[in-house]
Parts: sequence; structure tokens; C-alpha cells
Amino acid sequence: MAGIKYEIKENKGVLSESPKGWKKELNLVSWNDRTAKYDIRDWSQEHDKMGKGVTLTVEELRELKNILNNMDLS
Amino acid sequence: MAGIKYEIKENKGVLSESPKGWKKELNLVSWNDRTAKYDIRDWSQEHDKMGKGVTLTVEELRELKNILNNMDLS
Repeated sequence: MAGIKYEIKENKGVLSESPKGWKKELNLVSWNDRTAKYDIRDWSQEHDKMGKGVTLTVEELRELKNILNNMDLS
Repeated sequence: MAGIKYEIKENKGVLSESPKGWKKELNLVSWNDRTAKYDIRDWSQEHDKMGKGVTLTVEELRELKNILNNMDLS
């Protein structure tokens, strides 16, 4: 990702891991030195390569939590 | 998104809405006629335009739910 600066401030959890070692993670990430946002995306083992993902505010994460808790995921 | 066929099978919830009417949604989406997967991304009002996002299996969504329920989001 040329020109994009990022720093993973905190790893909140791993959703899954692929056979190649990539992990889908929920992180708190600062993009281009801005305030860190929550972020769900795939990362290589060394966190030097990333897939597409979504960034989420804490409000969006809270809403997502409510939605998931009202879904039957069993 | 030229060449990508998609069908929103089910809307599970809205995480947020932008002033322009785009919504960040959790949906069950079938991409290119394949089995529908969970998907978090921004959509235009008519669902004819989309932003980048992540697709998630039910196992990943379940894990995400666990992670969120163990976080302090207040």
C-alpha cells in the first residue's frame, strides 16, 4: 500500500487464520497518523501485507455488537 | 464494480448512516452466484454502489461476537 502509513495500536482479537498464516483480525489502527479506528481485515503473519477491510468507529462497533447479539449464530 | 455479480440475500442490520445516505451494513451477500457470506461494507441508498468491505463466514462472525462481548465499548 504505497503512501499509506499505518500503525497497529492494539490487537483486539483474531477471527480466523488461513493455511498460509494470514489472519483476519480486529485491531485498533492509526492510518496516516490520524486517531486510531477499529479495523477488520486480513493481515499477513508479519503484518507487512494487508487485504481489503473496513474501519469502524466505536459507535459502529457497539451497534455491530447489538446486531450480533440478536442473531442466531449457532 | 464491473464483472462482479452480487445479490443481497438478507439485511442483518445497519451500523451507521452517512449524511449522503450511504449506510454501513451487515448483510448476507451472494457474490457471483456463490453461497452467500456475511459482509460488512458501505452501500449507497439504492444498493447500486458499494465501498470496500470484508466478507465473513459464520464462524468468523461468531468469533467476532465473542471478541466484542469481551470488550468494553461503553
